Amino acid sequence: MRPGRSQSRTQRRSQTGSSIKQLPFAPVSNPFKPMELISDDQVAMIHHTSLEVLQGIGIEVQNDRALDLFKNAGADVDDKRVRLDADLVEQLIRGLPSEFTVHARNPEKTLKVGGNQMVFATVSGPAFVSDIENGRRSGSMEKVREFVKLSHSLNIFHHEGGAGVEPLDLPESSRHLDMMFAQLTLTDKGWQPCWLNSRKRARDCIEMAKISMQMSDEELYANPALIAGINTNSPLLLDDGQADGLIEMAIAGQPVHVTPFTLAGAMSPVTVGGSLVQQNAEALAGIVLARLANSEARVFYGHFTSNVDMRTGSPAFGTPEYAQSVVISGQLARYYGIPIRSSNTTASSVVDAQATYESDMSIMACVQGHVNVMMHGGGWLEGGLTCSFEKLILDAELLQMQAAFLKPVNLDRSELGIEAMATVGAGGHFFGAEHTMERYQDAFYSPLLSDWSNFENWQDKGSKTATERANGIWKQLLKEYEKPPIDPAVEEELAAYVDKRKEEIARTGE
Amino acid sequence: MRPGRSQSRTQRRSQTGSSIKQLPFAPVSNPFKPMELISDDQVAMIHHTSLEVLQGIGIEVQNDRALDLFKNAGADVDDKRVRLDADLVEQLIRGLPSEFTVHARNPEKTLKVGGNQMVFATVSGPAFVSDIENGRRSGSMEKVREFVKLSHSLNIFHHEGGAGVEPLDLPESSRHLDMMFAQLTLTDKGWQPCWLNSRKRARDCIEMAKISMQMSDEELYANPALIAGINTNSPLLLDDGQADGLIEMAIAGQPVHVTPFTLAGAMSPVTVGGSLVQQNAEALAGIVLARLANSEARVFYGHFTSNVDMRTGSPAFGTPEYAQSVVISGQLARYYGIPIRSSNTTASSVVDAQATYESDMSIMACVQGHVNVMMHGGGWLEGGLTCSFEKLILDAELLQMQAAFLKPVNLDRSELGIEAMATVGAGGHFFGAEHTMERYQDAFYSPLLSDWSNFENWQDKGSKTATERANGIWKQLLKEYEKPPIDPAVEEELAAYVDKRKEEIARTGE
Repeated sequence: MRPGRSQSRTQRRSQTGSSIKQLPFAPVSNPFKPMELISDDQVAMIHHTSLEVLQGIGIEVQNDRALDLFKNAGADVDDKRVRLDADLVEQLIRGLPSEFTVHARNPEKTLKVGGNQMVFATVSGPAFVSDIENGRRSGSMEKVREFVKLSHSLNIFHHEGGAGVEPLDLPESSRHLDMMFAQLTLTDKGWQPCWLNSRKRARDCIEMAKISMQMSDEELYANPALIAGINTNSPLLLDDGQADGLIEMAIAGQPVHVTPFTLAGAMSPVTVGGSLVQQNAEALAGIVLARLANSEARVFYGHFTSNVDMRTGSPAFGTPEYAQSVVISGQLARYYGIPIRSSNTTASSVVDAQATYESDMSIMACVQGHVNVMMHGGGWLEGGLTCSFEKLILDAELLQMQAAFLKPVNLDRSELGIEAMATVGAGGHFFGAEHTMERYQDAFYSPLLSDWSNFENWQDKGSKTATERANGIWKQLLKEYEKPPIDPAVEEELAAYVDKRKEEIARTGE
Repeated sequence: MRPGRSQSRTQRRSQTGSSIKQLPFAPVSNPFKPMELISDDQVAMIHHTSLEVLQGIGIEVQNDRALDLFKNAGADVDDKRVRLDADLVEQLIRGLPSEFTVHARNPEKTLKVGGNQMVFATVSGPAFVSDIENGRRSGSMEKVREFVKLSHSLNIFHHEGGAGVEPLDLPESSRHLDMMFAQLTLTDKGWQPCWLNSRKRARDCIEMAKISMQMSDEELYANPALIAGINTNSPLLLDDGQADGLIEMAIAGQPVHVTPFTLAGAMSPVTVGGSLVQQNAEALAGIVLARLANSEARVFYGHFTSNVDMRTGSPAFGTPEYAQSVVISGQLARYYGIPIRSSNTTASSVVDAQATYESDMSIMACVQGHVNVMMHGGGWLEGGLTCSFEKLILDAELLQMQAAFLKPVNLDRSELGIEAMATVGAGGHFFGAEHTMERYQDAFYSPLLSDWSNFENWQDKGSKTATERANGIWKQLLKEYEKPPIDPAVEEELAAYVDKRKEEIARTGE
């Protein structure tokens, strides 16, 4: 049996034993040249103009540890306003790590971040959850667990991106612990916490990662086991909690991206160019801070620039401007020699054609622009306010199709079927050709969601739209979910940590 | 007023006076490097292997004029099997025109085909027509007229691609005349006939083009005014009518593409590589024939390679393999220095997420692969069996978004808003900034179909999906349609030609 075929056979069975056909868990790499929308000179211009912003306007930093780090490095700190000399920034962004390995509880799911590798992660952050039967409603812990199970079951997602939805039925002060417990026990994939808004919460992430991996601080430092991220409060502000989260992750050696929230026209200038200059200034400020906290920090570039609808002020996503800013941000990240994160986004309120084309625009830009970590890769709806279970399935299909597109075409002589052409002859067909029979089972990408039946057969099956079929798929996946093995002692230790911290939070408030 | 802004203002009004907001009619060019999926050596290998096929296996040609042309050129003609020496092919594909201008009745809609230009054309060929209220039914002349009006009204479509749907309520023998009459009178855009399946019909296209443009044969030869295409009957067969159509167009100097119908696994080998070798062999055979008919022929490369679902034999479209074959075909066309056509395709039976992502996959590949003529750009559904009015609107949005994505980002200093950043300050917003006020009306792409309202406003407007909104848009466009000016004498002359030919067909059968 040829090596290429044994992998393809696996394709027809999920690795989790499900009856749903999907691609196997595998790293996705983009072997093709990244798209470039602007010249090298223009990339350098954005860099230098953002240095001018950091030096002339500066950034407000609302965190004392951060202000001290900036002061000690020789920055101009006036109350909370930090102005960074261009030379200081240039010096601090030199020699940043260009890639890192992110370890997963299951070593087969450990991944490289950087170069031409792409990591697809599921959504995090929404307050609402939706499916087409029950509509849109507040997130709950039950839905968090279901989402993490689905995130585990869908092989195309490399990372559990943040538990999908906020469990609004649990107390705000401690629900991050329950979410992490779900992420660390219901899947063995790598993961991304989404609560770096205080020093304590950042420490919770690190402590629970240590327990999950059974590692010491030093071991986790050497073998990072999560991907974290912070947002600047654009324009030009870094708040207390985000700064603390960034510093904690930098010190702990965990990969952390700095992602400005630059919605052009609202939180940044009304142009793609201006928003990218501001994004770059804010990203560099955060990267410099991480470096000041730890010169070995694994810190990388965050993209989230989109635009607002100027008639209403509503944020728009997956727009042409969004796609342009993704590709140019990829050029900026490569200028700095560091990985980049972006997202799979849409503003649509429903899993329809719009949700699909806005996501596809985002994904196309991420793929063509060589984005390394695609956050919100599965399940994001309605500008990130809603986590949709049908959208998760749709996104899995969109990403599987990209992964299949990026697989090099085999042009070996034996694959070309020249003899088959001679045998079949003019006007014949290849269905029965030996060349076909040897390959037909795994010849082409086999879809998760698409229905290629003819119209009559499609009608006979109930005339279902892709969104309606997605509903059946996630339910089937949930039904067939199997919890990945976990040492009961580790699970107990995680539970004990959650209990201890909940008790502490009840007592001290944090 | 700056030049850039006056164009943007136009963006808010349709050029046809409609209340529907859309981009103005404008050529679309792709200023970025084409994507490359295979190496230059591999491109040359596909070329040489296809020459080997033409020399060793050959192609069956069911047309006497074509067989004579091949014979006279020194090809090995055995009954209807034509075997072409590699040197002969190499010699005949040298110096092919790399671009041509296609004139439209309205000179503002004259377009260049070739280089980095993209021409978007609407669908042709479906037997069924559909909209979400009336469902799927047989095509009719009434629907042809409505479709051509919409094709005219949507600025993003540069060309009327073939009247949308077959008018099955009219006699098969003469309905092509009614379709062309609609194309030549209801829009002033360039056009593409879809009935090159006999010498007489090809001549009808040319004669009606001459009347429409009020040109002699010589003038039309010098100033081509339509884009034609033929299909080979894959595998390796060129039938009588298609060969005649190709020869007529070559002689008349009208741009014509040769498009093999290579559905991998059925009409070509079960691999992308093998299907591309066969596609290339068939395309070269047609290109060589056009050149033998007229050494100045404006002939170009046709891509239609996709794959079938190997479980059912159903054709699949907009698949990862389809996208790979588009991009590689672009590489092949550039190897020959000629323009290339491809298509915007989907196998979905309904205008849903699947229709959207399969179309998006096709469009992404066409854009990244520098396809020059995108046929079936608007309205194609269900593997080309159905012309959907809602899909036409959806496709217009997908293509508008690509056009906006391809517009170079303005990075002039004045656009960056550095002063606005200083004024707005940390944590503020840009809504009221002077830099914003000067630009906000035309700052961003304004969608045709997307709804960026928040959830509550979207609900208040009736919780409509994009497909439901598309229904409202095409109806509004039809209501507001204005027939472009046409000299009544020209319209009469066209009508008289149609009458004369119908009488002739009734009498002689063709």
